[in-house]
Amino acid sequence: MPGTPPTRYAYLGPEGTFAEQALRTLPAAEHGSRTPARSVGEALESVRAAEADAALVPLENSIGGAVGVTLDELAEGDPLVITREVILPVEFVLGARPGTQLDGVRSVAAHPQASTQCRNWLRAHLPDATVIDVLSNGAAAAGAANGEYDAAICAPIGAARHRLTLLSDKIADHPDAVTRFALLSRPGPPPPPTGDDVTSLVVYIAHDRVGALLSVLMELAVRGVNLTRIESRPTGEALGRYVFFLDCTGHVADARLGEALQGLRRVCAEVRFLGSYPRHRWTDAAGDRPVPAPAGLSDTDYTDAAAWLARLRSGELS
Amino acid sequence: MPGTPPTRYAYLGPEGTFAEQALRTLPAAEHGSRTPARSVGEALESVRAAEADAALVPLENSIGGAVGVTLDELAEGDPLVITREVILPVEFVLGARPGTQLDGVRSVAAHPQASTQCRNWLRAHLPDATVIDVLSNGAAAAGAANGEYDAAICAPIGAARHRLTLLSDKIADHPDAVTRFALLSRPGPPPPPTGDDVTSLVVYIAHDRVGALLSVLMELAVRGVNLTRIESRPTGEALGRYVFFLDCTGHVADARLGEALQGLRRVCAEVRFLGSYPRHRWTDAAGDRPVPAPAGLSDTDYTDAAAWLARLRSGELS
Amino acid sequence: MPGTPPTRYAYLGPEGTFAEQALRTLPAAEHGSRTPARSVGEALESVRAAEADAALVPLENSIGGAVGVTLDELAEGDPLVITREVILPVEFVLGARPGTQLDGVRSVAAHPQASTQCRNWLRAHLPDATVIDVLSNGAAAAGAANGEYDAAICAPIGAARHRLTLLSDKIADHPDAVTRFALLSRPGPPPPPTGDDVTSLVVYIAHDRVGALLSVLMELAVRGVNLTRIESRPTGEALGRYVFFLDCTGHVADARLGEALQGLRRVCAEVRFLGSYPRHRWTDAAGDRPVPAPAGLSDTDYTDAAAWLARLRSGELS
Amino acid sequence: MPGTPPTRYAYLGPEGTFAEQALRTLPAAEHGSRTPARSVGEALESVRAAEADAALVPLENSIGGAVGVTLDELAEGDPLVITREVILPVEFVLGARPGTQLDGVRSVAAHPQASTQCRNWLRAHLPDATVIDVLSNGAAAAGAANGEYDAAICAPIGAARHRLTLLSDKIADHPDAVTRFALLSRPGPPPPPTGDDVTSLVVYIAHDRVGALLSVLMELAVRGVNLTRIESRPTGEALGRYVFFLDCTGHVADARLGEALQGLRRVCAEVRFLGSYPRHRWTDAAGDRPVPAPAGLSDTDYTDAAAWLARLRSGELS
Repeated sequence: MPGTPPTRYAYLGPEGTFAEQALRTLPAAEHGSRTPARSVGEALESVRAAEADAALVPLENSIGGAVGVTLDELAEGDPLVITREVILPVEFVLGARPGTQLDGVRSVAAHPQASTQCRNWLRAHLPDATVIDVLSNGAAAAGAANGEYDAAICAPIGAARHRLTLLSDKIADHPDAVTRFALLSRPGPPPPPTGDDVTSLVVYIAHDRVGALLSVLMELAVRGVNLTRIESRPTGEALGRYVFFLDCTGHVADARLGEALQGLRRVCAEVRFLGSYPRHRWTDAAGDRPVPAPAGLSDTDYTDAAAWLARLRSGELS
Repeated sequence: MPGTPPTRYAYLGPEGTFAEQALRTLPAAEHGSRTPARSVGEALESVRAAEADAALVPLENSIGGAVGVTLDELAEGDPLVITREVILPVEFVLGARPGTQLDGVRSVAAHPQASTQCRNWLRAHLPDATVIDVLSNGAAAAGAANGEYDAAICAPIGAARHRLTLLSDKIADHPDAVTRFALLSRPGPPPPPTGDDVTSLVVYIAHDRVGALLSVLMELAVRGVNLTRIESRPTGEALGRYVFFLDCTGHVADARLGEALQGLRRVCAEVRFLGSYPRHRWTDAAGDRPVPAPAGLSDTDYTDAAAWLARLRSGELS
Repeated sequence: MPGTPPTRYAYLGPEGTFAEQALRTLPAAEHGSRTPARSVGEALESVRAAEADAALVPLENSIGGAVGVTLDELAEGDPLVITREVILPVEFVLGARPGTQLDGVRSVAAHPQASTQCRNWLRAHLPDATVIDVLSNGAAAAGAANGEYDAAICAPIGAARHRLTLLSDKIADHPDAVTRFALLSRPGPPPPPTGDDVTSLVVYIAHDRVGALLSVLMELAVRGVNLTRIESRPTGEALGRYVFFLDCTGHVADARLGEALQGLRRVCAEVRFLGSYPRHRWTDAAGDRPVPAPAGLSDTDYTDAAAWLARLRSGELS
Repeated sequence: MPGTPPTRYAYLGPEGTFAEQALRTLPAAEHGSRTPARSVGEALESVRAAEADAALVPLENSIGGAVGVTLDELAEGDPLVITREVILPVEFVLGARPGTQLDGVRSVAAHPQASTQCRNWLRAHLPDATVIDVLSNGAAAAGAANGEYDAAICAPIGAARHRLTLLSDKIADHPDAVTRFALLSRPGPPPPPTGDDVTSLVVYIAHDRVGALLSVLMELAVRGVNLTRIESRPTGEALGRYVFFLDCTGHVADARLGEALQGLRRVCAEVRFLGSYPRHRWTDAAGDRPVPAPAGLSDTDYTDAAAWLARLRSGELS
């Protein structure tokens, strides 16, 4: 039911990673149950199977890019829709068992993406330490806690959970790195428009049509719909066959986005709607302000044009 | 009332010109009254003033181009709509008083456009005759009949009316020349779609927007609406300020043309609808066959896309 | 030879019309010979036959639109190029033999376009006079001078030449009406760029290509070439077959216009170049200022991009 | 020197993975030295530092998509260019120490992407085995060889190198999966055009321009340049800031691609050229045939248009 927040939440585990941290920024999730899943696929399956009401999984990272497995899961299987996005600053810390000193660290456990994002810091502060690849930030923290490694690169929540001491915080090379998470539910009425919404789509273009991607962009441009993100993923059939993930400014209830969606439906081989939801404003940067509808493309302009067409068709006017 | 044909017809006079000949191709006009007007403006005013039900005036000629005065009258004043088009082969004859021989012709009266269209014939057959400019084809025939000139270039109907003998027929250099006439009425419900219709528009573009004409063509192209004619006319304000007359394939009742019209309404400074009416098929040339809607742009595709959008908005589907 | 002004000028006659007035605004023409021609075609033929060095003929009028016969002559026959444009305010006067009073005028001779442009004045000041159509403004003045008509609507130069008294001046309904004339010569190097030039083209589009006009506009838009005028004229083959006359901002020597021209050459059935010439600035209106090249489209940007490409091709750079 | 094949090759290690297998399809590499690198970054650095002449690294996989780390390395640091591509079918095998039987396998080591690609096979044939994530296909094979795991999902070359017996081959769910590798060298003259080439680019669009991506596609479309691949990667500055990796059909030496490149150079914030190289034809599928230049866009058409423009500029022609 729209209006009733979910009470059973799944998220990409293990515990103590950024996904859990992101989930806990949602007040409703603080009061509901929160179950870690072993993979993005498992998290989404639990929603499809109605074992959870919603699942929080990572969509993209400002350094590492799209999370391919999430995109693939959203494009295939039973449809799910995004009802919220959460954008979380990615803050890495170096944690170790109490008593460890920085100059005594010889081995550091880290997920490869985490060590990549902290490369400069490691070079400057631990030039001689060995970096050991592990499979998640949570696994790194656990390994440091049980003495397998001297230290771990992990999320603050992971260090806290494994009672690690922080040898250093904010060790990422890009201090502004963020990860964007999506909260996914079974299909239902989208949240009401807020005036600053995002609509996500999966678009399959007909590869036998020259300029098919150009057609897609034209359908959006003619209605003044702004494209804030485009990702391609292979369809798995062959190289050169892609599916596109688009994020557009606006809500499915808006007239111009509605018309653009209908246009995409007609020119594309397939369109999957991934939801309309409020944009998460995580900064006050000027460039992030919602853009008003271009001249002639507001809902009022659409209503006026539709009324005019009705008058033309009835012969009341020319 | 739709369905009731007009009974009082005006046409661009004088009698004995191509306009009268075109009007008489309409069965209803054969049974109604037919009044010549001294000018296109006068013909249209008689409809606006309800002194006539419909007026037939020339729109364009395949040699001479658009009839500027008709376009200007349609763009200004109280709105009128086109309900029929008539395309008439332009056949010029050389008429003279009975007894005149071709080799005795020393002076030929002709409207300048008529003598231009018969230039090669005149050069070949009457190289020494003087061509005298007169103000209409009907005036040429009248002048030959009253002995002012030895012969006249005129329409067959003009020769017949003034009892002229034909010294030669089909004397035009372009044997395929045609004139397109429009039958104009006061606004009312358009004739029903036939599957092969034309929609005429007057479009004012915002001259302070770069690429405004490109925007107009985009609105049509994205909906697969074919443009069969584009004419520019000065708005009268200044050089470089134009109004465009467009003929599109399709009917205002068609989904894709309706959406394109709404798009034009939003991006243009002003759009005047000049009517949707059956295309006059005057030849069987292959190129003149109606073009089916491009893939994804039929009325069925529009209905399907609208239903899909409704399901998305209600949350039934993603 | 470039740099040597023409000395023998033809113009659309008869004497005493706007074309003569326009020609005399050119200092070189004041010192050369000036021969009236009976038609636009005759004026242009005299240049093609090298009997004249240049011919001045009307291209378009801000009220009446394009001068079809001029466009047709430029599109066909041996090529000629525009080397100058002259824009002349169209000022109509009412002239009569000395001694005539306004309230004694019962007949007024006028070219139909002239009487159309003075309709409101005639209605207000000579509501009962008969307007007689004649074939040129010069013929109207001559007819008034020889007593055939009481008065004539004509150009100031025509009234002066026929020694008519002005019963009223500035009688046109649109006080800002102008006519644009073109000075045509045999092909030769274009006048040097001035930074505010016009390039005129005749473009035939392939009518078997959907969206061919859109392609033409795209070729211009992608290079940031501004289109200040587009006129269609029938090709004479059939209705629906048009040739387009384009005026673009810029000079054939400019990089971006050169690239756009090459693009048109490739996508169009045929392109005829009608010349690059300085824009005639007849007002100081803000809207008439030359527009600087859009970002990335100046000659410098083109030179930079060409040099970069050369480096890529040679392998010096990636 | 063009023409001299590289002799010292680096590739993404460890030994026994698909990258080594791909490298050995190049005859020159068979005769040169082949050094495994620990990461894509290390492989490329060895070329930049002139310790190797060329490095082979994965670009994209038809199942897993782009290899983000490779794209990031190509977009940043000192420029390198692609001189060859190699497309290799991805064939997974299940290897184990000699004597192991399939029904005795309780633990399977696999890189997470490998186990994902063999999910259906595992479910059908080893429903009860535990899958253990490891960090590379080579590590899986090594782990099976030393008895740490009962079996390993790996490449055929990995099984051979570690003397594993094949319990099953072709176990991937998508039998047509391929990986595309790029051979990278320091900048130099591109290999000569073959008539079926690919050009790779990195494009930064100005994010303050609405429709910037549309502009990029327009620059290509107007020159008939076909886009076979588009990938977006975050620039690392912020969410919503992307850099695009484009693969186009054609060679930098082709006229139309050259003009399109210059256009991109002018409208984009930055363009990095990643090389023109022969397309690897790994199948004979009809859809993979090279597409001839669209009408009007061949090198001959470009040469003709350039010659025409030169004549226009010199005044020889109109």
